[in-house]
Amino acid sequence: MTKLSDLGEFGLIDRLASKVGAGKEVIKGIGDDCAVLDGDDHYTLVTTDMLVSGDHFNRQWQTPFQIGWKSMVANVSDIAAMGGYPLWVLVSLALPDDVDVEYLDSIYDGMNSASKKYDMEIIGGDTTHGDIFVVNIVIIGRVEKEHLCLRSDAKIGDKICVTGDLGKSWAGLDLLRAGVEGYTDYHLEPSCRLEEGRMLAPYVNAMIDVSDGLSSEVLHICNQSGTGAAIYKDKIPISSRTREAADRLDKDPYRWALSGGEDFELVFTIPESKLDKISNIPYFVVGDVTEKGAYLVEDEQKRELVGGYDHFRS
Amino acid sequence: MTKLSDLGEFGLIDRLASKVGAGKEVIKGIGDDCAVLDGDDHYTLVTTDMLVSGDHFNRQWQTPFQIGWKSMVANVSDIAAMGGYPLWVLVSLALPDDVDVEYLDSIYDGMNSASKKYDMEIIGGDTTHGDIFVVNIVIIGRVEKEHLCLRSDAKIGDKICVTGDLGKSWAGLDLLRAGVEGYTDYHLEPSCRLEEGRMLAPYVNAMIDVSDGLSSEVLHICNQSGTGAAIYKDKIPISSRTREAADRLDKDPYRWALSGGEDFELVFTIPESKLDKISNIPYFVVGDVTEKGAYLVEDEQKRELVGGYDHFRS
Repeated sequence: MTKLSDLGEFGLIDRLASKVGAGKEVIKGIGDDCAVLDGDDHYTLVTTDMLVSGDHFNRQWQTPFQIGWKSMVANVSDIAAMGGYPLWVLVSLALPDDVDVEYLDSIYDGMNSASKKYDMEIIGGDTTHGDIFVVNIVIIGRVEKEHLCLRSDAKIGDKICVTGDLGKSWAGLDLLRAGVEGYTDYHLEPSCRLEEGRMLAPYVNAMIDVSDGLSSEVLHICNQSGTGAAIYKDKIPISSRTREAADRLDKDPYRWALSGGEDFELVFTIPESKLDKISNIPYFVVGDVTEKGAYLVEDEQKRELVGGYDHFRS
Repeated sequence: MTKLSDLGEFGLIDRLASKVGAGKEVIKGIGDDCAVLDGDDHYTLVTTDMLVSGDHFNRQWQTPFQIGWKSMVANVSDIAAMGGYPLWVLVSLALPDDVDVEYLDSIYDGMNSASKKYDMEIIGGDTTHGDIFVVNIVIIGRVEKEHLCLRSDAKIGDKICVTGDLGKSWAGLDLLRAGVEGYTDYHLEPSCRLEEGRMLAPYVNAMIDVSDGLSSEVLHICNQSGTGAAIYKDKIPISSRTREAADRLDKDPYRWALSGGEDFELVFTIPESKLDKISNIPYFVVGDVTEKGAYLVEDEQKRELVGGYDHFRS
């Protein structure tokens, strides 16, 4: 018997990927933010996320509107990371006995608000009973062929950048867990970088969204691009609100940024020569793509980057 | 507070359908076996099913291979009901602590066997932790535009037919529940009528698969086509193995056929004049599409048809 935690979440994904074949018209299967299917004048993007009560959301402090909203945003963020745009959504729900119709309506209000914001439509799904509350979202989107951004296209010498400050989601989560007032808004009702992803797509090499923390996302890029990376700790953007939360809880905000996740910012690599093309987008340079080894650099010391949030080990 | 069971599964689907809009290029949204998206020379079909341990499968008597297999077949059956064929699959799994890697491998063996049989490929998904075991499958397929079969196209005077014997899945389930030996194979490792759906598609008017029992499927056709139906009880095909199981358990096999579900046969309506076109497919005529009212007819008595299996009421 091998425990799932022995493999970990990403070991497991590798194992599953090795068990399935490459498909008809499949440009990219398991192993990126979305699956990519060929089309006449575009690629089709498909992404799915399963969110389980207790593991991924908490009904004590998240309203049903917020659960609906966030489950959509997490998936739109995966579409954004490919440089694409979302079109259609399928929503599967398993609902326990204590969910009533009004609660369900609020979940859908949250989902519909997100659908309106990101210009997509719910076209189907499945609603069933379960002893635990589970939400599964599928989003189908598109990207122009020349704008597809994969994790695997980083080039040695690229700058590694992020579209915004990190650690903000786990700051909120840790505040809520501790029952301490503070900056919880972003954790409860995050947004994602769809517009920025569209603007970045023509210029960047590799792109990924921050689901599991900067460390984990940079490691994915390195593994799939066959490169290394140096991340400069003092360049990681952390807002004063996140720092305040860290002070209040006596926590390290860099740990939130590196290993927390759910910030839904985009991490991308881009040749330095193209940085002037993206000057209309707020971004922060946090590191360099190198030949090999992935390190966090602080005061000229370097430590190996380690993976981010792992659902089977945390 | 309104309980979900006050609305029931199909009342809930109607309510959710009314809360979401019609989408871009959406030929059919919520309310059929698949969502249907426009394309250049074909329609794209998308279907999803969420299966929750305890509600939809039972780890005591279903092997992981069988859980993987059946979860795929249930979704292929939805594609078959539209007249289409499957291409790509996304698998989301929430796994509790007691699932080990070998168990997960067996689930994937079941899924891969079904993928091979129905000529489709697993291209992505999500694997996460959950306190309960949940499987969500998404299948994307296609159908030629002229062969799309909806629930809403039944015509008065059509014959109502099924592709095989009914009640066989719930016969197995009730045997397993009672711990009695018998015909449980079909419940544990069902197949579906993909090939038959493809052969029927050019000729039939309305089509649906048997997920929730013949009553429920005929009522869906009637509601969406604006017709009635007469189902002749003595024409409902029930195999001798299913009858034996019913005898052994002192159950009514017609109840299994009408309200059990998971038989994954196809129910279709077809003009009598076209029956000779489908003579290469085994089928059973079980009723007529009428002007209004949906009835089960027995010995010249008629009773109103009532809905099938309801996940919120059962």
